[in-house]
Amino acid sequence: MKPMGPIPPDFRAQDGTLLIGGRTTAELVAEADDTPLFVYDSAIVEARIARLRAALPASVAIHYAIKANPFPPLLKAMRPLVDGFDVASVGELRTALNADMAPDAISFAGPGKREDELDAAIRAGVTINLESEGEAWRALWLAEKAGVRPHLAVRVNPDFELRGSGMRMGGGAKPFGIDAERVPALVKELLAAGAGWRGFHIFSGSQSLDAEAIIETQAETIALAARLAEEAGAEPPTVNLGGGFGIPYFAGDQPLDVERIGAALERAYADRPAILRDTDFCLELGRWLVGEAGVYLTRIVDRKESGGQTFLIVDGGLHHQLAASGNFGTVVKRNYPIAVANRFGAEPEETVNVHGCLCTPLDRLGDQVALPHAEVGDLIAIFLAGAYGASASPSAFLGHEPAKEMLV
Amino acid sequence: MKPMGPIPPDFRAQDGTLLIGGRTTAELVAEADDTPLFVYDSAIVEARIARLRAALPASVAIHYAIKANPFPPLLKAMRPLVDGFDVASVGELRTALNADMAPDAISFAGPGKREDELDAAIRAGVTINLESEGEAWRALWLAEKAGVRPHLAVRVNPDFELRGSGMRMGGGAKPFGIDAERVPALVKELLAAGAGWRGFHIFSGSQSLDAEAIIETQAETIALAARLAEEAGAEPPTVNLGGGFGIPYFAGDQPLDVERIGAALERAYADRPAILRDTDFCLELGRWLVGEAGVYLTRIVDRKESGGQTFLIVDGGLHHQLAASGNFGTVVKRNYPIAVANRFGAEPEETVNVHGCLCTPLDRLGDQVALPHAEVGDLIAIFLAGAYGASASPSAFLGHEPAKEMLV
Repeated sequence: MKPMGPIPPDFRAQDGTLLIGGRTTAELVAEADDTPLFVYDSAIVEARIARLRAALPASVAIHYAIKANPFPPLLKAMRPLVDGFDVASVGELRTALNADMAPDAISFAGPGKREDELDAAIRAGVTINLESEGEAWRALWLAEKAGVRPHLAVRVNPDFELRGSGMRMGGGAKPFGIDAERVPALVKELLAAGAGWRGFHIFSGSQSLDAEAIIETQAETIALAARLAEEAGAEPPTVNLGGGFGIPYFAGDQPLDVERIGAALERAYADRPAILRDTDFCLELGRWLVGEAGVYLTRIVDRKESGGQTFLIVDGGLHHQLAASGNFGTVVKRNYPIAVANRFGAEPEETVNVHGCLCTPLDRLGDQVALPHAEVGDLIAIFLAGAYGASASPSAFLGHEPAKEMLV
Repeated sequence: MKPMGPIPPDFRAQDGTLLIGGRTTAELVAEADDTPLFVYDSAIVEARIARLRAALPASVAIHYAIKANPFPPLLKAMRPLVDGFDVASVGELRTALNADMAPDAISFAGPGKREDELDAAIRAGVTINLESEGEAWRALWLAEKAGVRPHLAVRVNPDFELRGSGMRMGGGAKPFGIDAERVPALVKELLAAGAGWRGFHIFSGSQSLDAEAIIETQAETIALAARLAEEAGAEPPTVNLGGGFGIPYFAGDQPLDVERIGAALERAYADRPAILRDTDFCLELGRWLVGEAGVYLTRIVDRKESGGQTFLIVDGGLHHQLAASGNFGTVVKRNYPIAVANRFGAEPEETVNVHGCLCTPLDRLGDQVALPHAEVGDLIAIFLAGAYGASASPSAFLGHEPAKEMLV
């Protein structure tokens, strides 16, 4: 038996069946008319946002990075709850605008913005997080041609990184942003060119469960923003402090202490350097807001024995939930939390492998996990499917149908 | 500088520009009207099939596993050149039939076949490779209801594996097929039930560059098929020997000696046990037939310096070519062969990182590769994009457009 990650504490059973949004998984599957199915529970997302609002100083805005989950009904539900959406392509920009987010509450980051993407973003009036000096000049030139004053923030590649981060996005040679020491000169040039300078975007890493590391990084980020502003001789209208808030995926992972982070940020905000007096701060979070709210439901289509082990073969797989198979951004496969949805909360009775329907050994969803007995027709629930699931998986692989998605 | 894999020897330059199918990359991009673009060279696929035909005994059929690349124009081109298509879902089955492959030359393998998939396959008259006893009985029951005699082969989980294989698909506890020792009993049951028993499917691994290991595995496979047939008391109409033929992706990889494999198979076929006298043999290959025929073309949208390194940021990325980023089935990122398409064959002048347009550090396509100097607007070619590229990548990730595909 190998361990699995923790099931988010929000989930309950009723008569032995997993409830999502107060409804049984059988009801949800019946409404969707088939499996596999992603179900996102809007109440969990709401609760995460409310908890974060309570933890943070009122002056720090919350942005949602829609790359984590761009499902349109989810964005519609989140739009009134957050202060902005962050997008990473023109496709995501359109999705954000379709969810009725105001253009001035949208920012666009991404290291490879094409001219047609820059042009569309400038015309839409969203903030572009500039990733290089070359991109800055392309944006200024396109804005001039369009007759629009562009909203430009500078993405900074900081000279530090978020310790213990799942993905390091700052420090050293990076494809993202402009090395800190070159930023003041660029800000001066943007101001001289008459651009609508929006401030700084400083993103140092993601998926950290270490509150102390995040606190330290936020303090360094504020100090860096102040130093760059002093050197540029200009007060930044906004500073995006990045994100980095992780969720527990694997056995032994502990949830992030966001209240501790909020209290530290409250003190750091109160003590902020004078040049940031009138600066608006925001956090940009994706996974932490939505990751725990999603469940991937897939039906067992076969139960078989091989080499003394039991395999539950399901109708879903890595074509919908690549990360759960351990093939996206992780070096070794570890088990996401998994349950038999129609025996939720029952004691484990056997050790099984949960394998997807794809004809590849990569499609291993649960490796030697302890579950109650399950048979063909039963539903398997794989948790932590709210972020980087349906939209981050190779849905066309092997010609299966795309997964259904539902917000409850 | 880090090494990269070998560019397939089929590619040539004309006036310093890469040619694919005799056309310049600039012409191809103009015809496609945009980048990123996958181009598949049908002449290379034809040449691979011809080479394999010449190497193999005439009695061994060649099947194409369309999971490697199901692009419809490619399937249309390959259909008259191979003896069958192998599919892994009903979606792929429809794609194979749309390419005019005869149903009796199609086989369907996959560990998680749903009832609706089994039913469609039975009604279409294709061969189903049974993955478990449970699936066998579901298939018999569905065929009875449909009033059709089903074509059923037994996929065997052999008691050996392909040494040095990139993916082990046989040996030990596996989700694929039926453990060898239980196979004879199932064959007897299928025959007693009046099914159209088609023989065995024995697939031990994939992406091997070791001819000796493949020769050994093929010999073991033939011996196993004979032993199972003896125990079942029935001559198998067909034996699918699997595939396993790899292509060189990385520095130091040597191409597979298929002529040596063919010569050994010729001897093994001549010496085959008496019970396999009238058996048709086939190989099922995917990657080896098409992998080297594809090139992914993507345009440089930014050139930047960070931390003393140079980054070429391109408009493509892992959303189209996940495997090249090292995030699909490989533990460490190693470089696929990469070239500046409009300076093909020029001497390397600098060491650069080639990074995709996605806002994630995972999107690294070339790590410290030596290339001739390239600027914004130049085309980067990433080779070995003919298999497990467009169809095996998370195309919706971050909301970018899907890649274009073209057969020349």
